[in-house]
Amino acid sequence: MTKISNIEQLKKLLTKEILNQNGAITITINAIAEISHSNDIVGNCLQEWLPEWFEDNGLKIIATDKTQEFPDFTAYFEDEVVPIDIKCWNYENSPAFDIANFDSFYNVLYNDPKKLFAKYMTIGYVPTKHGFTIKYTDIKSLAELLGPSKKYPIGLQVKRGRPYAVRPANFKKKDYKHFENLDELILAVKDTRDMFPLSREEEKYTSTQWLEKLKEEINRYK
Amino acid sequence: MTKISNIEQLKKLLTKEILNQNGAITITINAIAEISHSNDIVGNCLQEWLPEWFEDNGLKIIATDKTQEFPDFTAYFEDEVVPIDIKCWNYENSPAFDIANFDSFYNVLYNDPKKLFAKYMTIGYVPTKHGFTIKYTDIKSLAELLGPSKKYPIGLQVKRGRPYAVRPANFKKKDYKHFENLDELILAVKDTRDMFPLSREEEKYTSTQWLEKLKEEINRYK
Repeated sequence: MTKISNIEQLKKLLTKEILNQNGAITITINAIAEISHSNDIVGNCLQEWLPEWFEDNGLKIIATDKTQEFPDFTAYFEDEVVPIDIKCWNYENSPAFDIANFDSFYNVLYNDPKKLFAKYMTIGYVPTKHGFTIKYTDIKSLAELLGPSKKYPIGLQVKRGRPYAVRPANFKKKDYKHFENLDELILAVKDTRDMFPLSREEEKYTSTQWLEKLKEEINRYK
Repeated sequence: MTKISNIEQLKKLLTKEILNQNGAITITINAIAEISHSNDIVGNCLQEWLPEWFEDNGLKIIATDKTQEFPDFTAYFEDEVVPIDIKCWNYENSPAFDIANFDSFYNVLYNDPKKLFAKYMTIGYVPTKHGFTIKYTDIKSLAELLGPSKKYPIGLQVKRGRPYAVRPANFKKKDYKHFENLDELILAVKDTRDMFPLSREEEKYTSTQWLEKLKEEINRYK
């Protein structure tokens, strides 16, 4: 049994054991089996299979109990505890999975600033006749995953004039634009908040207070 | 091979071959298999497995290409074509799946009134250690599936003061209250529309015009 003691080892293990592998999802009822091809199912199943496989390889990885928060998991490495998420998408498309609801992203970071250091496992699959093939595996920081979009300081889905989901930069492109560092990322979040201010009743702290608190957290680890 | 020639036969086949059966979902990558237990996955997989199994039993059932519309399928029986949907839920809970977005439900019925006669296959499963067991199977009309709620003329999820998803009555309870007939159902939809009127720009027909058109459709088949 491999013992995964840090993020680098996890990244290597993904490349060695998961990348380019074939997979299949089978549903059996009353001894009649059918193979699933739906994207939603493949993505959800991978998000369920991977943590079980990490456990089999000696990594303790626990699902967060608050489903509204991000990221979904916490990984307990030898020397550090890392908030982690697993995002799977059909590699034939651009990655357009949701990172978090914008308001939730903003609040969670303020209340638990160490989540700025969360890692995102990004897994791209391609459906095949008999299942799927894993075509992409990587582990990215939030700064590597996110970037400015054409219309907003950060990749953002907007619905009825309100910020909705935070979306990744198109990291499938080699020359994709992501944030240089976490300082750049938090500034973009603050600018986005200022474009979509909260009402006085909703606002518990100003965007400047938000920025200062997150800056402090980053500087603590510099 | 059984030839399913009408709804009654389909209902009987479900009781005979699916009810009380065990099932499992397995995801295999690189020859390592894990069993899935997540509710979303079981529900989605059942919704994928069942139409394939119906086809194996001689029933032509085709997915609707418009994903925003309801219901999801059309079944081609010997003598009739029936709009049909498959709704699966964890039988340990009350059925709370979405039938449709209210505005979409309202518009689709106006534009395609024969969808009033859609049938809903309701499948309840219970997760077990090694997969799941099917504990409930039925096929219901919209009048049997829907009923008034405490706050609204029809079971309705409301978000930020706007009608959101149309939800089923709690048919797990023996004495649950559903609509007596389609006339009662369309009146409840009209009353709900009047509680949440559309803006002048959004409104293409009045709720009275809506009701008249749907009444005509019902009377055509009386």
